[in-house]
Amino acid sequence: MKYCSQCGSKTERKIPEGDNRERDCCTSCGLIHYTNPNIIVGTIPIKDNSILLCKRAIEPRYGKWTLPGGFLENGETVSHGAFRETLEETNTEVEMGELYSIFNVPQINQVYMLYLARVVKDDFSSTSESLEVEFYNEENMPWEELAFPFVPIAIKNFFADLKKGEFPLTTHTIERKK
Amino acid sequence: MKYCSQCGSKTERKIPEGDNRERDCCTSCGLIHYTNPNIIVGTIPIKDNSILLCKRAIEPRYGKWTLPGGFLENGETVSHGAFRETLEETNTEVEMGELYSIFNVPQINQVYMLYLARVVKDDFSSTSESLEVEFYNEENMPWEELAFPFVPIAIKNFFADLKKGEFPLTTHTIERKK
Repeated sequence: MKYCSQCGSKTERKIPEGDNRERDCCTSCGLIHYTNPNIIVGTIPIKDNSILLCKRAIEPRYGKWTLPGGFLENGETVSHGAFRETLEETNTEVEMGELYSIFNVPQINQVYMLYLARVVKDDFSSTSESLEVEFYNEENMPWEELAFPFVPIAIKNFFADLKKGEFPLTTHTIERKK
Repeated sequence: MKYCSQCGSKTERKIPEGDNRERDCCTSCGLIHYTNPNIIVGTIPIKDNSILLCKRAIEPRYGKWTLPGGFLENGETVSHGAFRETLEETNTEVEMGELYSIFNVPQINQVYMLYLARVVKDDFSSTSESLEVEFYNEENMPWEELAFPFVPIAIKNFFADLKKGEFPLTTHTIERKK
């Protein structure tokens, strides 16, 4: 941030009075501009023993396979955001289940919240965000072609829980290389 | 937002190409300024059958009682943020437990994540953010003096679960009056 979004004057990084972290502060109107982590919501869309994956049609990781998900938008609940992102990336309306995985990615200020979801229709298809949308089970999973570090962790966790028949919420922290 | 935080030119609200929501877009450099929901992290700090509450020393709801919590900061995990907020508002280092309650407050673009926590030291005290820090049980809880709608919901839920001896994660959505 270089300029105040309210008055257009220059901002400076400093610790405001009564605070303990550097913020972007306006040199003219004094407004403090806070930035905080974002929530990424998504699903593990399941049918029988398979997971519906999306081949990314956008950067980063174009052409790699991922679980459907994206930024929670203003005005949404986390569950509805996960449903919407799944619809946008797979074209199918899933039946939402429980919160299953939380991933902290503190180096990029993101928190992922993944829900279990049931694929109840056969109308999934590619979208403007997904080159392909396909089911994969544990045997034919494209492990080497998964898009982000959280994807194989969530998927392996799911297949392990599938064998036990229990799906407890787990929380993970991913340390990214800087 | 009135001015671009990168170049200082005026912004306008419009739907960017390929998007489906209005964003603040710079009329000069074209940068799109996304705003997304914030995460509020906090705890239900417990000892025996009592909950440690904080009497707010800051607006809004100055003088009302609340559970310790606040905005997750960049670079933090959700659990560590909840621990830090509890420390800042009670001066005691709690022993963190499981995620217990999620509150969606979509009208103000907030998601609350509350953890169970155990109060293991007697060093809690008032802080710059809390006028008083005190334990309350179900009988002497100041129900009429609680700060925010989520507080009595989380507390009632906790006391009900305490009787059952099970503390499953629950998700709530609070519709605020506009």
